[in-house]
Amino acid sequence: MHQNRDAALKRLSRLEGQIRGIARMVEEDRYCVDVLTQIAAVRAALKGVEKLVIDDHAAHCIEDALASGDLDDQRAKFTELLDLLDKARS
Amino acid sequence: MHQNRDAALKRLSRLEGQIRGIARMVEEDRYCVDVLTQIAAVRAALKGVEKLVIDDHAAHCIEDALASGDLDDQRAKFTELLDLLDKARS
Amino acid sequence: MHQNRDAALKRLSRLEGQIRGIARMVEEDRYCVDVLTQIAAVRAALKGVEKLVIDDHAAHCIEDALASGDLDDQRAKFTELLDLLDKARS
Amino acid sequence: MHQNRDAALKRLSRLEGQIRGIARMVEEDRYCVDVLTQIAAVRAALKGVEKLVIDDHAAHCIEDALASGDLDDQRAKFTELLDLLDKARS
Repeated sequence: MHQNRDAALKRLSRLEGQIRGIARMVEEDRYCVDVLTQIAAVRAALKGVEKLVIDDHAAHCIEDALASGDLDDQRAKFTELLDLLDKARS
Repeated sequence: MHQNRDAALKRLSRLEGQIRGIARMVEEDRYCVDVLTQIAAVRAALKGVEKLVIDDHAAHCIEDALASGDLDDQRAKFTELLDLLDKARS
Repeated sequence: MHQNRDAALKRLSRLEGQIRGIARMVEEDRYCVDVLTQIAAVRAALKGVEKLVIDDHAAHCIEDALASGDLDDQRAKFTELLDLLDKARS
Repeated sequence: MHQNRDAALKRLSRLEGQIRGIARMVEEDRYCVDVLTQIAAVRAALKGVEKLVIDDHAAHCIEDALASGDLDDQRAKFTELLDLLDKARS
């Protein structure tokens, strides 16, 4: 990763803390629905990290493949994106 | 579209019938949860059509952009895929 | 359905037209990504209908089950909601 | 939580390790798409924990509300489920 590297690391570190917080809630027998709300917050945070990685991937890995004129690399980049799209849709 | 054109049209025609079927269920005051089950079936069917279009797009539009060596067209194809991914993730 | 019946029927009729519009786009060999954009619009519209049905279900079927004091009916309503939640999460 | 408490804690502890693993991948400048694959694995794991909490909630909190005959509690349980469904659908 390039421009979003530090931002991603910061968010991942916060995410780790959020997961630990959920474990603590379960240990303290907190109400299930409150636990589910925190899990939803983690899912949203995870989406944020994912967005940072995708944007970085687009701005660097994909741009590099375009600039290289290397057809195999370009096709690989398309295939990867199509796979990600397929997983995101399911 | 190319190779999946007929399959997509066939499924869209079936989808139209499914939507009409749901309207009939609502008119006949059928149970809400049964209506919701049919709506889920339509959503799954819609995903199937979408898959046909994406596969066709990959096999033709994207391959054409790769073969053309036209950098602007290739970048446009990546940008479109990234937009689709972004929408699918949200 | 009760209070949202007419609104749901109106939207379903519009949805049917949207599906027909997509079929026409495929027949006219319109660009795949434009077709995908219309499919996304249909998915959003479908979600809107679903919301109308769920709200109606909550305001009537579930309220009736609560008012009835019928434990079996109440349990059935919970089970249905949990099933819907399970499907929506996957 | 009740019967799924230990299983949930075990999975959350594993999840914490997975998040740390992703941070390490970012630090080591691993390929973006490999990072995205790991993020998808974490999302799936998160869904698994969520399922454990929902099942536990259904088997205990909801069953208790039914057994209590307390209409306000039952209505609260329905409202919470409907909120969860609404979030899961969006």
